[in-house]
Amino acid sequence: MRTRPLKVALLGCGVVGSEVARIMTTHADDLAARIGAPVELAGVAVRRPSKVRAGIDPALVTTDATALVKRGDIDVVVEVIGGIEPARTLITTAFEHGASVVSANKALLAQDGAALHAAAQDHDADLYYEAAVAGAIPLIRPLRESLAGDKVNRVLGIVNGTTNFILDKMDSTGAGYQEALDEATALGYAEADPTADVEGFDAAAKAAILAGIAFHTRVRLDDVYREGMTEVTAADFASARAMGCTIKLLAICERAADGGSVTARVHPAMIPLSHPLASVRGAYNAVFVESDAAGQLMFYGPGAGGAPTASAVLGDLVAVCRNKLSGATGPGDSAYARLPVSSMGEVVTRYHISLDVADKPGVLAQVATVFAEHGVSIDTVRQQGRQDGGGDASLVVVTHRASDASLTGTVEALRNLDTVRGVASIMRVEGE
Amino acid sequence: MRTRPLKVALLGCGVVGSEVARIMTTHADDLAARIGAPVELAGVAVRRPSKVRAGIDPALVTTDATALVKRGDIDVVVEVIGGIEPARTLITTAFEHGASVVSANKALLAQDGAALHAAAQDHDADLYYEAAVAGAIPLIRPLRESLAGDKVNRVLGIVNGTTNFILDKMDSTGAGYQEALDEATALGYAEADPTADVEGFDAAAKAAILAGIAFHTRVRLDDVYREGMTEVTAADFASARAMGCTIKLLAICERAADGGSVTARVHPAMIPLSHPLASVRGAYNAVFVESDAAGQLMFYGPGAGGAPTASAVLGDLVAVCRNKLSGATGPGDSAYARLPVSSMGEVVTRYHISLDVADKPGVLAQVATVFAEHGVSIDTVRQQGRQDGGGDASLVVVTHRASDASLTGTVEALRNLDTVRGVASIMRVEGE
Repeated sequence: MRTRPLKVALLGCGVVGSEVARIMTTHADDLAARIGAPVELAGVAVRRPSKVRAGIDPALVTTDATALVKRGDIDVVVEVIGGIEPARTLITTAFEHGASVVSANKALLAQDGAALHAAAQDHDADLYYEAAVAGAIPLIRPLRESLAGDKVNRVLGIVNGTTNFILDKMDSTGAGYQEALDEATALGYAEADPTADVEGFDAAAKAAILAGIAFHTRVRLDDVYREGMTEVTAADFASARAMGCTIKLLAICERAADGGSVTARVHPAMIPLSHPLASVRGAYNAVFVESDAAGQLMFYGPGAGGAPTASAVLGDLVAVCRNKLSGATGPGDSAYARLPVSSMGEVVTRYHISLDVADKPGVLAQVATVFAEHGVSIDTVRQQGRQDGGGDASLVVVTHRASDASLTGTVEALRNLDTVRGVASIMRVEGE
Repeated sequence: MRTRPLKVALLGCGVVGSEVARIMTTHADDLAARIGAPVELAGVAVRRPSKVRAGIDPALVTTDATALVKRGDIDVVVEVIGGIEPARTLITTAFEHGASVVSANKALLAQDGAALHAAAQDHDADLYYEAAVAGAIPLIRPLRESLAGDKVNRVLGIVNGTTNFILDKMDSTGAGYQEALDEATALGYAEADPTADVEGFDAAAKAAILAGIAFHTRVRLDDVYREGMTEVTAADFASARAMGCTIKLLAICERAADGGSVTARVHPAMIPLSHPLASVRGAYNAVFVESDAAGQLMFYGPGAGGAPTASAVLGDLVAVCRNKLSGATGPGDSAYARLPVSSMGEVVTRYHISLDVADKPGVLAQVATVFAEHGVSIDTVRQQGRQDGGGDASLVVVTHRASDASLTGTVEALRNLDTVRGVASIMRVEGE
């Protein structure tokens, strides 16, 4: 074993960073044995140097992250600050000064992955980011390496623990969205401002990263259709149960049936209770991958939290250190396929639509005609008259597979029917 | 991209090998883009050269596998023959002649992994074998690389599809073992001689491989305790259901609570229906991994079959080819921890024991005394008198965690009680 240590700079020492530092210290011997050389924590950049950090030598702590990544003796920079800047500049500077980078920064990777990969390649450096998607769950490496000889057709995942906790709570207790969110906040599963989670921004960043890797194609954050889950109601869960489903916020990356294009999207969807993703509880994450040869795979585990995220960071750290020792770099960016990314309108899936309609003869025929005119084939219709003898009824339509554009056209036309009082909900049905 | 192709020799062209060859041909452009150089099928060693093999140039086919691996221009040898010899000699010869090796051979890796890894290292070659355990499911790479910075404490897996199919069938239909086996055979899930599967030999080989990688310790096939599932009865399933469990044939690799030793074992066990492994249906495989930092992870997918196994082989082929191009080798054998492998007697778990006892006062007290004398604490007891008013009753005891040695001692003593007519079944309870 080499005795001269590899030097690691840690940018950020919050929930994840402090776990990375702790494990680097307590498991130093194991890491050295697995890498083939000791690793040394050579500097820790923080915003508040006065904060006491157990187990970290105060002499290593600095507020000058830029100077740390410019030192020139750093082998690997671990970036767990999050956000776009200063993370982006620090990572680029690290490459310029000979370091490889391990990052957990999904927002940055989703937005600037291509430029960062190019910078890494220019400097023969590694850029690893297993922790950026689904926390501890090995996903980037399996997609990029284990499935490197296969053709991935679909990635279907629960990649946000906060929203899964909320939806699971709504499902199991009948709670409404706000009540479930309040509980998630009280338990620390949701942040004070939950927007990034509940509006699907976090999941969309992960979808962009996953789609890019799965399809060897550049998928930008703007390419990802995004719909949050704040409008999912207890009534939606009742509807889902009536058809043997539950509701999950899914990130879905798909290759079109003809193979010529891909899509990426995040939205709530009904999935059958028999689907492995349906039983993913609480704040857990799980990602379902379908490929030509392997068939259906699923990866399950904790999608967030200090220790799980640190586990993913350290796995990357070991890999990057090994690469440093052998003078090689790992598999970098792969976007050779250059498939066009289609818009949401071209996505083909099934829909569950609840309509409030007038309770009189001929309504179903009118509604069915609108679906037919837009080329959307109906699978089942359930009609429920109101018990109070009033003039309204509810009509639940589940369609066969249709394009999102056709469905949107259908819904617009339905809204123009005199007999349709309103469209109570539209939800996609996935995983069948 | 390099234009000179990397040359691949394929040993074996059965169910897996023919899929490997097919994908290498149909996905040649993708493989080249992902590797950075084209890969060329340079030779295929088979036993029956006269058999027509669609898509394979007959000029590549040879019966002389030894000459093929000795050619000297071969970059990677893919071994999908299976069995110990001639596979072992061919792999060793391949290393001696400058090739790296991708293998799907669990029996060989379990028996001679250490020697083969040493041979690979001596010749700066790679030895990859993702396909040897759980088919298409990325498992070796996640354990060896993604979790390289973590401490794995437990691997709990369904790693044999044949037995999972049989047990699932027994569970869902109430069929007996023989009936379920007959159906598995008719459907092609079980071989004409199912011994390797149903007696747990196949799972034991995988357990040895997984334990070795998970604990960075040499675990030999002989170190793995093995019990088949041929004696699991419909009555056992009824007992399992009564306690909210089902029965699976599990491969279990564990680090002792004090961290100082490890165990590996294969046997049928009850697991709670709420455990993610309980819902693994049909011939699917799934492996649950528990580690210090990552927590609980699960990997799920098809554990066998030509195309899924080929997917794993090709993922390795891409990795090994990339390593060849960069002049590096991937992470090799890691057995530095050298933890002692304890025997089955030291395994600590819970037990479900069904006893046929005389239906008279004092029996429960006698039985409970025997458990207490052997230090085995009882969790629940269920006593059922026979409906026909005869002299026998049934007593179902579920214990708290106890060592296998204590339990064995308890059962021996129970058999010696006059009031115990027989021990109807003993089954371990896992996954809690």
